[in-house]
Amino acid sequence: MRTQLDCIPCFLRQALEAARAAGSDEHVHRRVLNSVARMIPQLSLELTPPEIAHQVYRLIYQITGNSDPYHQAKIEANRVALALYPRLKGVVANSEDALRTACNLAIAGNSIDLAPGSYHGDINEIVETALASPPVIDNYPDFKNSIHNSKRILYLGDNAGEIVFDRLLIEELRKVKELEVIFVTRERPIINDVTLDDAILVGMDKVARVISSGSDAPTTILSQCSSEMLEYYHSADTIIAKGYVNYESLDEETENIFFFLRVKCPVGAKLLEAEVGDSVLKQQRIVDK
Amino acid sequence: MRTQLDCIPCFLRQALEAARAAGSDEHVHRRVLNSVARMIPQLSLELTPPEIAHQVYRLIYQITGNSDPYHQAKIEANRVALALYPRLKGVVANSEDALRTACNLAIAGNSIDLAPGSYHGDINEIVETALASPPVIDNYPDFKNSIHNSKRILYLGDNAGEIVFDRLLIEELRKVKELEVIFVTRERPIINDVTLDDAILVGMDKVARVISSGSDAPTTILSQCSSEMLEYYHSADTIIAKGYVNYESLDEETENIFFFLRVKCPVGAKLLEAEVGDSVLKQQRIVDK
Repeated sequence: MRTQLDCIPCFLRQALEAARAAGSDEHVHRRVLNSVARMIPQLSLELTPPEIAHQVYRLIYQITGNSDPYHQAKIEANRVALALYPRLKGVVANSEDALRTACNLAIAGNSIDLAPGSYHGDINEIVETALASPPVIDNYPDFKNSIHNSKRILYLGDNAGEIVFDRLLIEELRKVKELEVIFVTRERPIINDVTLDDAILVGMDKVARVISSGSDAPTTILSQCSSEMLEYYHSADTIIAKGYVNYESLDEETENIFFFLRVKCPVGAKLLEAEVGDSVLKQQRIVDK
Repeated sequence: MRTQLDCIPCFLRQALEAARAAGSDEHVHRRVLNSVARMIPQLSLELTPPEIAHQVYRLIYQITGNSDPYHQAKIEANRVALALYPRLKGVVANSEDALRTACNLAIAGNSIDLAPGSYHGDINEIVETALASPPVIDNYPDFKNSIHNSKRILYLGDNAGEIVFDRLLIEELRKVKELEVIFVTRERPIINDVTLDDAILVGMDKVARVISSGSDAPTTILSQCSSEMLEYYHSADTIIAKGYVNYESLDEETENIFFFLRVKCPVGAKLLEAEVGDSVLKQQRIVDK
């Protein structure tokens, strides 16, 4: 999808957050804001929001000299989510439809976004909410059906912490039938997105083949992906795309994609005809493969 | 108070809202965003947020060619608040402490801000909330005492619609004792702030002397005010300053000011040690006059 005018103030807000996360003082934060402000008149709204965010974050990392400001926050998010993992396994195992519960939790995990600090309370609350309120757009029956007809699944990861919930869902998928699952991370650290390090830390490599997208964009920009990643992308029977940013990038693609996301902003809410905070399990479209 | 870095993305967000309210098409909205973005590197953070907002709105009005984009929204806000006026009078009359209730409602009225459309539902909800939840910072006893010791009250107005609630409070103040009340509006339309037209429309001139500040800033910038306004400002025994923007401009003054406001943004919430949406009745400081 193309960038909306409403996204422009939001890029500036995100830039300030990231500059602060990168440390340094108020003068540097001001320089970051000024530099992003100077980018605005040149921005092409034909790009998707995460493509522009990619440019913005690169600039921030260049100015602050910190190429991984969310490093500690990611470690903490993974730690807290891993500590919750045994309880989540129990919740899934004891539920009426384990796959359904694992899907709802995987969507809930997408709430673990740019909110460093107090992950523990948040994650518990996120889990409770997930179990109480199913997705407002809910193509679960189609998803279940698609899995039954699939041999190869491509799973596009999103954030640290959330990746533990992704592992849980992949474990349930593999109970349904014998499946080849490929889990995709970003090539290098960007915001709090998952990299190979995060995948290994949470043991994702024990349940899936883990690869990098080949790009450090905070989303899936196909033109920037490695040929390995693209081969899996085009040959997968089902693609699970986590997070609203993957929806922003892939909403016009024709593969058999299921978007698992929480609605994060008013622009997305309007497009999806949902509310900010809603859970969504949305099938892109049914295609003959 | 000086402007915070957090205010900068917010100026851009407000600019987009105002550009849209001014009508015109997306290309003009984009030009507004670009122009405000170009202002950012030059902005002095020594200015207060409404001083910068003043510059931003002037620029928007220049680009869009519409110097009063909220004209209709203001008329609608006044209309709906006036329709509610008899009910509000009844609520005040039947309450245990009429002045207290009128204060709480006047603060609640400050919620009628930049939200054109659906005023009716909103205002009713605002009233209910006001009656259920008292101010979190509550210098009402000092305010009541100050009124008892005052002869002249300067009342700095804020928004259309809200002004009906201000009239209600002034009526209650004049029941306490014989008082000279001066109600101050902006000189010309700016955002949805009150002008002399709004004051006359809601009958404010029947309960107070109505004057303009002499400035079209969306707040009280003393250096821009008329000598008439400043004479009242310095001679008033009690000053009632409505809205968070007046707090932003006058928080370092030494007059006997009471701020009646709803906390509108995270920056204000942090400074006031309150939450966004909280009601505040805050005395500036106790001064010997």
